[in-house]
Amino acid sequence: MRESRQLRNRLLEEVMSIPVVDVHSHVPAAQPFARSLRDLLGYHYYTELAHSSGLAREAVAPERPDEEMIPALLEALENITNTAQYSWLIELAQTLFDFEGPRLAAANWEPLARAVAARAEEPGRARTILDRSRIEKVFLTNNFDEDLAGIDTAMFVPCLRADALVFGLEDPAVRAALEASSGVALTGAKSLKRALGAVVERFRGAGAKSVAISLPPSFVASVAGDREFKAAVRAALRGDDLSLDRQQALQSGVLFALAQLCADCELPFQVMYGALRNAYVQGVHQGRDLPHAGDTLHGLLPLLNAFPQVTFCLSVLSESQIQELNSYGWIFQNVVLSGHWWYLNVPEYIAHDLGARLQSVPKNKLIGYYSDMYKLEFGLAKFNMYRRVLVHVLAGHFIEAGLGTEEEALALSRQLLRENAIRIFRL
Amino acid sequence: MRESRQLRNRLLEEVMSIPVVDVHSHVPAAQPFARSLRDLLGYHYYTELAHSSGLAREAVAPERPDEEMIPALLEALENITNTAQYSWLIELAQTLFDFEGPRLAAANWEPLARAVAARAEEPGRARTILDRSRIEKVFLTNNFDEDLAGIDTAMFVPCLRADALVFGLEDPAVRAALEASSGVALTGAKSLKRALGAVVERFRGAGAKSVAISLPPSFVASVAGDREFKAAVRAALRGDDLSLDRQQALQSGVLFALAQLCADCELPFQVMYGALRNAYVQGVHQGRDLPHAGDTLHGLLPLLNAFPQVTFCLSVLSESQIQELNSYGWIFQNVVLSGHWWYLNVPEYIAHDLGARLQSVPKNKLIGYYSDMYKLEFGLAKFNMYRRVLVHVLAGHFIEAGLGTEEEALALSRQLLRENAIRIFRL
Amino acid sequence: MRESRQLRNRLLEEVMSIPVVDVHSHVPAAQPFARSLRDLLGYHYYTELAHSSGLAREAVAPERPDEEMIPALLEALENITNTAQYSWLIELAQTLFDFEGPRLAAANWEPLARAVAARAEEPGRARTILDRSRIEKVFLTNNFDEDLAGIDTAMFVPCLRADALVFGLEDPAVRAALEASSGVALTGAKSLKRALGAVVERFRGAGAKSVAISLPPSFVASVAGDREFKAAVRAALRGDDLSLDRQQALQSGVLFALAQLCADCELPFQVMYGALRNAYVQGVHQGRDLPHAGDTLHGLLPLLNAFPQVTFCLSVLSESQIQELNSYGWIFQNVVLSGHWWYLNVPEYIAHDLGARLQSVPKNKLIGYYSDMYKLEFGLAKFNMYRRVLVHVLAGHFIEAGLGTEEEALALSRQLLRENAIRIFRL
Repeated sequence: MRESRQLRNRLLEEVMSIPVVDVHSHVPAAQPFARSLRDLLGYHYYTELAHSSGLAREAVAPERPDEEMIPALLEALENITNTAQYSWLIELAQTLFDFEGPRLAAANWEPLARAVAARAEEPGRARTILDRSRIEKVFLTNNFDEDLAGIDTAMFVPCLRADALVFGLEDPAVRAALEASSGVALTGAKSLKRALGAVVERFRGAGAKSVAISLPPSFVASVAGDREFKAAVRAALRGDDLSLDRQQALQSGVLFALAQLCADCELPFQVMYGALRNAYVQGVHQGRDLPHAGDTLHGLLPLLNAFPQVTFCLSVLSESQIQELNSYGWIFQNVVLSGHWWYLNVPEYIAHDLGARLQSVPKNKLIGYYSDMYKLEFGLAKFNMYRRVLVHVLAGHFIEAGLGTEEEALALSRQLLRENAIRIFRL
Repeated sequence: MRESRQLRNRLLEEVMSIPVVDVHSHVPAAQPFARSLRDLLGYHYYTELAHSSGLAREAVAPERPDEEMIPALLEALENITNTAQYSWLIELAQTLFDFEGPRLAAANWEPLARAVAARAEEPGRARTILDRSRIEKVFLTNNFDEDLAGIDTAMFVPCLRADALVFGLEDPAVRAALEASSGVALTGAKSLKRALGAVVERFRGAGAKSVAISLPPSFVASVAGDREFKAAVRAALRGDDLSLDRQQALQSGVLFALAQLCADCELPFQVMYGALRNAYVQGVHQGRDLPHAGDTLHGLLPLLNAFPQVTFCLSVLSESQIQELNSYGWIFQNVVLSGHWWYLNVPEYIAHDLGARLQSVPKNKLIGYYSDMYKLEFGLAKFNMYRRVLVHVLAGHFIEAGLGTEEEALALSRQLLRENAIRIFRL
Repeated sequence: MRESRQLRNRLLEEVMSIPVVDVHSHVPAAQPFARSLRDLLGYHYYTELAHSSGLAREAVAPERPDEEMIPALLEALENITNTAQYSWLIELAQTLFDFEGPRLAAANWEPLARAVAARAEEPGRARTILDRSRIEKVFLTNNFDEDLAGIDTAMFVPCLRADALVFGLEDPAVRAALEASSGVALTGAKSLKRALGAVVERFRGAGAKSVAISLPPSFVASVAGDREFKAAVRAALRGDDLSLDRQQALQSGVLFALAQLCADCELPFQVMYGALRNAYVQGVHQGRDLPHAGDTLHGLLPLLNAFPQVTFCLSVLSESQIQELNSYGWIFQNVVLSGHWWYLNVPEYIAHDLGARLQSVPKNKLIGYYSDMYKLEFGLAKFNMYRRVLVHVLAGHFIEAGLGTEEEALALSRQLLRENAIRIFRL
């Protein structure tokens, strides 16, 4: 199979050079890159895996000084050198900070820490990182009341994160923030919808290209009757404790109102389905959530059917739903399959999932990957991991399987990495 | 691995030449092959994928003339050239109609359309297609009241599709059709069972070798008490609106009665489990159903346990049930694993499923594949896709894995493609 | 890829020579190896697969003489020569009994039967088998009232199997046995806990290193209130028929009490989740249980969260839960992923599961494999199967995927096969 190895190498070289659009990240526009090594090592993948491997949660607490936290963490990370997550750290350190070792340890972290701090002072650092990573644009995740001024839209694309709106309206602080940021006094369902409209309008004005939400397992989007929704909103505004039915009516009502705004404004709706929050109570910060096997996307059908004109970019968290999601993308005109999320962002899972997507779903409906990163540096390593899996799958499951030529494989790569995102989000 | 490549080529040549028995299709005996290109392009895989990729549903409506529908569809299909489904179309066009292009487009469809129309006039066309496809026999799917006269049983095997009997008896038209076709007046549970017996008897007389049904997700086959069944039948005959309990008693009762007839007549029962019907309301015709992740076959246990003497050929629609089904085939004497159905009929899924089946389930209990086709032409491309995956799995997961020799791999292929079906269905 | 083949061969040679610790088996310490061929052929894998392939259950009944049972079974086993389970039989026969054929049949079983009987007389046979198998230690599965004296702890590690304690206390015979073996009269929750403590104490004294339990699908470990637990215990002691709520309180209460004892005694708790018992009523002995697709480990969260100081070694039975389990191991400090159990102990499933584990879970939290065997001979073949899959995965999904070097792959193998078990179980 010498040819096959050569084919892979040729494909890899090409695929590595394709610029990408990253449709989902948690990068803060004000400080998008690491100012310190701790900014990189503090990523929940490292703290949660170090904790899982045996490190006390306190060892990575924010108040611990670097000189204690970093060596303790690095010692624990020796237990995860086998993982893809660890490989991200090494690849970005090597590529962006000239780190030379294959392993980061107590003996060699200080020069790296100095390099991270020094590079952070270089002008245009964010652009430099993106260029080295061949990333064209990065979507942000912005809370509804976030100040969007000063976001550099040459690099970043704002995105309205709707979780607090759908799940937080029982909290008076959320309602107050919504009133303040929308300029609408909340008195009932009608004013709530006006406030949501004002939020979306403000986001559009700032260049937002999408609304996004993370839905818990078993979430059911019910077509809320107008009366039930009004009653639920009134109860929430009064500060009542809501019954489960009322909560459901409130949440679904807001979700549908947001979907209607997406329809009116031609914004795609990114839906990430299935994170069970705070399942592991002793876990580290951001390391407490889980997937939930056995779930079904069935609860989304009312939403998908009610808004055929809205493009829903769906991600799931559980392998038991991957093929179900594949089937949704296969028949629903308004469903796009997006990336490989979190616990499924592992080469083994990506390869199986991607193989099936490429073999059965229209190619214009596949957003290959997004980074989900908190600092720009990780985009490089995560997208490179994906590029390698993509090449592996294209060589074996597409070209070898007789589904297309090498040239078509490259055209497909460009769609998955860049072009579909540009078309779908109207960039 | 030059040897390995040679091994695959040798295996492929052999496996391609094995004649197959196709135990499940929707081919209409009266018009089993395409008379027009539209007969091929109208297959729901193409209309649903074209729609999914962006084509308006109306563009593929029956009333649209070919000159509009075909170019519109072909333009949309450019979005699915990556898929296995598309590869079926090209392979059959090339092999059966001397089509030369790798892609079907507005520029080249007319000669193909003429070729399809011309070949349709050739005498013995069905036989010619089957011979080119190395398909020996094709099972049909016949409604209980269908006229079975004139079916060419040299090529076709009738099969009683029981869905309307199990799920349709609340509909007066179904009851009337049952009375007419069975010659039995329905007055209660006893006469209903006599009518079912008459139907099965008529089918057997026409050469039927199987009963088949498609069950929805979460279906529970409860051992209906005789009294509950009688009451449910009476209520249905009266035209009452049935409670869920009554519906359940009626459906399970009919299902058990049919299983009893299978036992009496030594007919295998083909059960396809898990299609959620009409989930996508804006979908095209036959493009509205979905799998349902998270389901379990547990609800079939009462049926499987009640009829140890009936062979149940099971298929599932959801990847999350594949390994469960594997375990059923592993221990149940009366469970045969059958094919790779619909949304799972994708090389990536077939390979994983088949790998595990070959490594853990008795080889005499595996029906490798069926076409599920509506026109004979697709049998060629679908079975060829399966043959290629089979060779891939045999080379890597069977021979390389040390489970058997090349000769044994070929013997296994013959069992999966042909011999098991002949033995199990007593052909 | 000549290098790749050579890499695999080098890895295989090394991995084959690593001694292993087998953390879960059903070997009886008093008679750990086969005294007859029937002791080997009677393993439920063979009887259940033979039955599944068509053999009447009666043909393998205990009262059947060898001369009838063995040829009948062997004839049926011709239907499973494709399976990994069959390959175990041949590999152990060849390696441990100088069996020469590739297939065991009516014509060649008698010399093998004589060899099995003869070897059984050799002194030190158990040790010989373990040495040939490169197995260092084998965990047993001991009922709470089992006599632990005379267990050769140079070879065997006792393990308290807690199923009867958690699920059997409604049975007066179980309660009587618990009173007798613990020396504690059961009068309520307090004395029950004392009795459990006495059992664990007795096991620790005999060298036990673990408590183990098999939980059914959908089991929910609820934090039982003290009052509910006391009431449930009293009702059970009175011999009442317990309501579902009471059963739940009793079972969870005992489970939590055992977990507390594990915490006190620093014993890991092995939890095998998801076997649906007696699902196939016509099945052979031990061939009636099934996995249950669609389940979730969610019901274990109260237990895992309540005992952060107890190491839970988890196994699942359903492919739909494999990735969920992976995520548990990824974040929970007290969750270790253990082996590939029963219906998932198939190379295809192991490879997919192991690929993801190696790429995403800390390497010190992976117990690669256990045999689950009933006779020592099977350890050889089962571990060898695992070693081969491990090499395949390490070569392709670890070294080729750029996650580590050949040397690191071997270090990883030693952790998975031996070192993690030694550290986790304090051997």
